[in-house]
Amino acid sequence: MALRARALYDFVSENPGEISVVENEILTLYSEDVVDGWFEGTNSRGESGLFPASYVEILRTEEGFSVQGNGTAGNIYNPRTGSEYAYQVRGDTSSESTPQRHGYPTSQGSDDDWDDDWDDNPTTTTMATHDPSVRQHKHQPSRANSVSSRGSGGQQARSSATVGKNLNRFSTFVKSGGEAFVLGEASGLVRDCDQICVVMGQFGPEWQENPHPFTCTIDDPTKQTKFKGMKSYMSYGLMPSHTQIPVNRRYKHFDWLYARLVERFPVISVPHLPEKQATGRFEEDFICKRRKGLIWWMNHMTSHPVLSRCDVFQHFLTCSSSDEKAWKQGKRKAEKDHLVGANFFLTIVPPAAPLDLQEVESKVDGFKTFTKKMDENIVQVNVTIAEFSRKQMTGFKKEYHKVGQAFRLLGQVFELDQQVYSVKLNQAMAFTGAAYETIGDYFAEQPRQDLDPVSDLLAIYQGHLANFPDIIHVQKGALTKAKESQKDKDVPAAHDIHERCNIISCATLAEIQHFHRTRVRDFKAQMQHYLLQQISFFQRITAKLEEALHMYEQA
Amino acid sequence: MALRARALYDFVSENPGEISVVENEILTLYSEDVVDGWFEGTNSRGESGLFPASYVEILRTEEGFSVQGNGTAGNIYNPRTGSEYAYQVRGDTSSESTPQRHGYPTSQGSDDDWDDDWDDNPTTTTMATHDPSVRQHKHQPSRANSVSSRGSGGQQARSSATVGKNLNRFSTFVKSGGEAFVLGEASGLVRDCDQICVVMGQFGPEWQENPHPFTCTIDDPTKQTKFKGMKSYMSYGLMPSHTQIPVNRRYKHFDWLYARLVERFPVISVPHLPEKQATGRFEEDFICKRRKGLIWWMNHMTSHPVLSRCDVFQHFLTCSSSDEKAWKQGKRKAEKDHLVGANFFLTIVPPAAPLDLQEVESKVDGFKTFTKKMDENIVQVNVTIAEFSRKQMTGFKKEYHKVGQAFRLLGQVFELDQQVYSVKLNQAMAFTGAAYETIGDYFAEQPRQDLDPVSDLLAIYQGHLANFPDIIHVQKGALTKAKESQKDKDVPAAHDIHERCNIISCATLAEIQHFHRTRVRDFKAQMQHYLLQQISFFQRITAKLEEALHMYEQA
Repeated sequence: MALRARALYDFVSENPGEISVVENEILTLYSEDVVDGWFEGTNSRGESGLFPASYVEILRTEEGFSVQGNGTAGNIYNPRTGSEYAYQVRGDTSSESTPQRHGYPTSQGSDDDWDDDWDDNPTTTTMATHDPSVRQHKHQPSRANSVSSRGSGGQQARSSATVGKNLNRFSTFVKSGGEAFVLGEASGLVRDCDQICVVMGQFGPEWQENPHPFTCTIDDPTKQTKFKGMKSYMSYGLMPSHTQIPVNRRYKHFDWLYARLVERFPVISVPHLPEKQATGRFEEDFICKRRKGLIWWMNHMTSHPVLSRCDVFQHFLTCSSSDEKAWKQGKRKAEKDHLVGANFFLTIVPPAAPLDLQEVESKVDGFKTFTKKMDENIVQVNVTIAEFSRKQMTGFKKEYHKVGQAFRLLGQVFELDQQVYSVKLNQAMAFTGAAYETIGDYFAEQPRQDLDPVSDLLAIYQGHLANFPDIIHVQKGALTKAKESQKDKDVPAAHDIHERCNIISCATLAEIQHFHRTRVRDFKAQMQHYLLQQISFFQRITAKLEEALHMYEQA
Repeated sequence: MALRARALYDFVSENPGEISVVENEILTLYSEDVVDGWFEGTNSRGESGLFPASYVEILRTEEGFSVQGNGTAGNIYNPRTGSEYAYQVRGDTSSESTPQRHGYPTSQGSDDDWDDDWDDNPTTTTMATHDPSVRQHKHQPSRANSVSSRGSGGQQARSSATVGKNLNRFSTFVKSGGEAFVLGEASGLVRDCDQICVVMGQFGPEWQENPHPFTCTIDDPTKQTKFKGMKSYMSYGLMPSHTQIPVNRRYKHFDWLYARLVERFPVISVPHLPEKQATGRFEEDFICKRRKGLIWWMNHMTSHPVLSRCDVFQHFLTCSSSDEKAWKQGKRKAEKDHLVGANFFLTIVPPAAPLDLQEVESKVDGFKTFTKKMDENIVQVNVTIAEFSRKQMTGFKKEYHKVGQAFRLLGQVFELDQQVYSVKLNQAMAFTGAAYETIGDYFAEQPRQDLDPVSDLLAIYQGHLANFPDIIHVQKGALTKAKESQKDKDVPAAHDIHERCNIISCATLAEIQHFHRTRVRDFKAQMQHYLLQQISFFQRITAKLEEALHMYEQA
């Protein structure tokens, strides 16, 4: 019989050969083979082509269960029973993934492949897009070992008609652990040092500030080799301001850290890492671009009150590069962290007074509109900036060069007249020609100084904007649960659910607040930088022209 | 029988429907009808199409004479015998003319049409191109009334095998009167005040400077009406610095003056008048452009040692606008001036020591190369400037507008977040957006300030460069005659011819010297003006950006 699958998310085809799929749409697969992360099949509109394997779950009605295209989810809810699905070729390295197309990378290393010499091993890393599944990583809420279950009163899962589990078992709400937490299924030991406080600030809930703020610089990467130069990689020198001890990290370390953070903090927007590139990764342009991207990333990390303080990030920043044992120890500890997903919410300490959930809903809805609009506008601004950049590097440069050549040309014909009174003018004209050619070069070099950084900033924010739908989804899920529980006052856990929804809401609003604050800070700084660069650019042009003008005084 | 014509000059077709003709080529005409200055016919290569009637002479072998397409030349050598050629539709207003295509206008008014209310009466004005016939105007060397014949020793025309008349009776050398002068056929009364001195300067012969230099401003023209507003024309207010008495002149007065000067000074480059336009001549842009052109023209006139002092120009500058009688008197006097054409050379007083004619030849050849190259380069520079101008007014403006809109767009989405700490940033972003839109406008407006004046200057020089081939031709003709006379020492007039050739050479070199001096002066001034405008332009941009930057300090 035909092999069928159900779409878990919307996917919009962007390239020839791809087909679009709509959430819940039933698709016919040609085979179970996953090629480079893609299935081939036909959608309900009869279009045939490729779509991401991780966006669908195969329907096996005769076996009575369905399996998400991504093996990880199956791990949680459907312990693998030895059935060897072709898409499980990723094995243990599976992170929630989308086939390579564009966007930012995430990877989940393991000790086994950790020492791989290549930064960009395609079998251990994948490219994520702005798709809703990006932020999920495997998290296995421990149902046993429930030592403490703060806020859930130690309650185990209970289903009722009104406050049951989400029917879509693979929604972000479910995967983030949000549902499990709201339903009181999360449990774990939360030490004092693990607590994350949300305080009530002037503009609503906000993360308690890091009492020991620090920054971290990233040096130009150096090329390192292994195995007598057979294998090489780039190493970045990091210098955290609070330790003043330099450490060296490779891109894959950043990548591993990123994966840890994403699974650890379901309602925190972890900044995306700069784009990775399979080829030419030792080329100067790419190295420079990636370093700038990593600096932006690092600035966002160190300025986040929660991310900056978390263990895994501190381990990354402070563990000696030469102490391999200490590194592996910290690495394993981080990978075994039980306060991920649902349990993350156990660590949140909300302000004393609970929030008005209706007000929360309105704020979150407002923010949803904001992110949607900002995302749209950024796309448009990016197009404009890229075009303006291109025009300056080509058209503007060409025009000023041509004008320079025209003045040179006039100067050259004037040189045919060798009379004394003409000489200085001829020299001045030649100089003017050269000046305009230089100005053309200025135009060509300028975007790197001013438009590129704006573009880098927009990229960081596009990453955040791609994160927020999931964060909002978790809060919405919690709110829905709270509303359902209130409708039916008989639900014994209604109060607890409301309380846990409050925790999720506080965390979400704190994160939104943090987003706005850093946005205002970043865009102010970036616009100032842009304008300063532009001013200095036009001043350099003016100086060049004044130099040329001066030549005529002697003519 | 087929009507045939002989090409007097090369004509290169530039538009569909036109055919190229080569000097001396025999053409077959379809008819004698001149349509808008064009004949239709077939050239010797079998190509059919249009060519300028004034470039050919009709061959009427059965009548034993040939008539140049232009009725004027026929006037000189073949007094019209009442034969009504179709191309004589121009009647008395005929000046040497080329059909309208491009270039500068020349016209020769008459009392009859003087009071015509239209500046641009197509029956009294024609458009000249850079063709060798442009500079010729009707000049009838009076063979009788030879009161004095300075330099020719009172000799009348004499022909010999070696120093005969030019076979091409219509060459510039002939038409300018150069040949007649060299052969001693020129005669006229030259008063002391008519004498034009060439002195030996540091760099060779030069015109004696005007001991009373002056300038003349041209005000914005005002629209005047006649016949109760039925007819209207533009009137320019002129203010010569040496009289300080304002006079009003219309374009047709300039046009008339131009025609007088061209016939009066065969080896002086009379600056071309700004282009005339049949329609839209009251439109602001055109008025502004023409006024700027007239200012350039006037500057060249007042700074020329010979042109600035001549009677007809002084009459134009000083005759009261309201004294119609005085005006007409001066007008008639100028039109009857006998020191035109060949007789002009009678007025030249050369330096005491005659020039080395070989050196003259080498200088003139060098200058010929110079003008040819400069003309070519100016064409290229003009294309570049026009394109740069257009780019700034369209592409550059658009790009800066688009960037402005992008910043606005970001500011707009930021306004969705109504938090207090965001407000100043939002305002600053909106301001930055507006600033870039303004900068776009600056770019669009700038060419008018800096590139247009360069372009105007180039136009004036294109006019000069179009004049010089004829001037050089006259000198070359004289030199050839001198060489011929030297070859055959028996020619009795050899010494006189050599002396007269020296006079023409002195005048030519003085004019070349003047050209170079004004060129250096003009281009130096124009480049300084251009650079000053550019500097002020980039400073305005910088100021605008600093204003925008300032907004962020408060954000």
